[in-house]
Amino acid sequence: MSTYNRRIYLSDTDAAGVVYFASLLSICHEAYEASLEAAAIDLKSFFSNPKMVIPIVHAEIDFLGPLFCGDRVTIKLSCVQLKDTEFEITYRISVSVSPEICVAKAKTKHVCINPSTRRRTQLSESIVKWLH
Amino acid sequence: MSTYNRRIYLSDTDAAGVVYFASLLSICHEAYEASLEAAAIDLKSFFSNPKMVIPIVHAEIDFLGPLFCGDRVTIKLSCVQLKDTEFEITYRISVSVSPEICVAKAKTKHVCINPSTRRRTQLSESIVKWLH
Amino acid sequence: MSTYNRRIYLSDTDAAGVVYFASLLSICHEAYEASLEAAAIDLKSFFSNPKMVIPIVHAEIDFLGPLFCGDRVTIKLSCVQLKDTEFEITYRISVSVSPEICVAKAKTKHVCINPSTRRRTQLSESIVKWLH
Amino acid sequence: MSTYNRRIYLSDTDAAGVVYFASLLSICHEAYEASLEAAAIDLKSFFSNPKMVIPIVHAEIDFLGPLFCGDRVTIKLSCVQLKDTEFEITYRISVSVSPEICVAKAKTKHVCINPSTRRRTQLSESIVKWLH
Repeated sequence: MSTYNRRIYLSDTDAAGVVYFASLLSICHEAYEASLEAAAIDLKSFFSNPKMVIPIVHAEIDFLGPLFCGDRVTIKLSCVQLKDTEFEITYRISVSVSPEICVAKAKTKHVCINPSTRRRTQLSESIVKWLH
Repeated sequence: MSTYNRRIYLSDTDAAGVVYFASLLSICHEAYEASLEAAAIDLKSFFSNPKMVIPIVHAEIDFLGPLFCGDRVTIKLSCVQLKDTEFEITYRISVSVSPEICVAKAKTKHVCINPSTRRRTQLSESIVKWLH
Repeated sequence: MSTYNRRIYLSDTDAAGVVYFASLLSICHEAYEASLEAAAIDLKSFFSNPKMVIPIVHAEIDFLGPLFCGDRVTIKLSCVQLKDTEFEITYRISVSVSPEICVAKAKTKHVCINPSTRRRTQLSESIVKWLH
Repeated sequence: MSTYNRRIYLSDTDAAGVVYFASLLSICHEAYEASLEAAAIDLKSFFSNPKMVIPIVHAEIDFLGPLFCGDRVTIKLSCVQLKDTEFEITYRISVSVSPEICVAKAKTKHVCINPSTRRRTQLSESIVKWLH
């Protein structure tokens, strides 16, 4: 389980005065990237590898309360390997000053493929190591 | 059921060369806004109404294939009222030249609340009319 | 000179209730992409060409009035070739119902380079044709 | 002068494999928000104050080199008050490991107005204090 802290910026919000729904999924993805980097995975080559990519095949998010510009959020993520080609990440988002209150929950499912054939291929050793 | 057409722009993509996952949810929301506007609902006041807002409480998306910069996509959305305070929209995304192949499916669930109290309140007549 | 029409969506706005400043530059870039496509330039290969890319080296924007969610904007763009490796685009943004009132003006400068060496290289024939 | 550090995330990049031009202006705005917050200015009320808003009237950016997903950038910002209703911020962006090499420079100009009348009004004391 890893933790990511983030301020909510003006660009994350919309005219309704709160965080735009899709922006919070982006912020969850930042938490995933920060976690990969903490495991010494090079993000540049990870996301533009011509032989192996791990696109998101499913994403979902539940909003339990609003988030405003200037709020500081804490995202706790936990990963689980589902198959030798597939893993899932769950995210629990809270305002940092009230960590016990969950304001949103999200999930992303990732499948490892060869980008030319778009067929499944085994997760690399470094990712499997990161997952455990 | 309404239909929305949209080109994929460079800003929708990421360094993996395809549409960034959360951007496609944004594009689905555009389809929702276009549909509201076609029903003569004023978007400016709709999204910043101090008495009634309809935030998304759940969103999900499944990716069945990649989308690239320059692709033209067609989004078909259909709405269903779940309660007098709640509705759901489903989105079927295809590349416009191959409308029979679904490249992504998404869903958003919306709950009508009073923004000051954050309590549920009835959907307005104009929204109920748009839903049917 | 080419023209691009666009609705302002919720995702373009921020908690101040108006279009987020950087989003309007993105919308100008959409106008550039639509113009390239109208000239039969394939956007996917154009933006991920391993031999020739045309990054923006300078961008600027002036805001003369606010834009709101639901506004329909018209962007008129005009291009000028500055060198055999360089061109500039200017954008005039107005609300479609009042085309005589300019609400923002922007400019982007583009330089053609080889992405491996990052050195200048001549604009391709198709771009030169598009510019004239 | 204040300093802001930031990782480049996948959502900041585009299919050309580098940071999307308008995203870097957003990242500069984050640096501005972080600086305001460090001066104990409440961002939520600052950006949605019904009596006084400080929109950007001009923004510009020069790109001197590419930025990639995973890069860590450092932004140094310096502010100067131009009038009693107006200030300007300049941003110098470098990759954190090579702080002496500037990869981009940006500037934003902000004017204090009353949002109902859209007329200029004096900068508040807290902003003037932050500027000095």
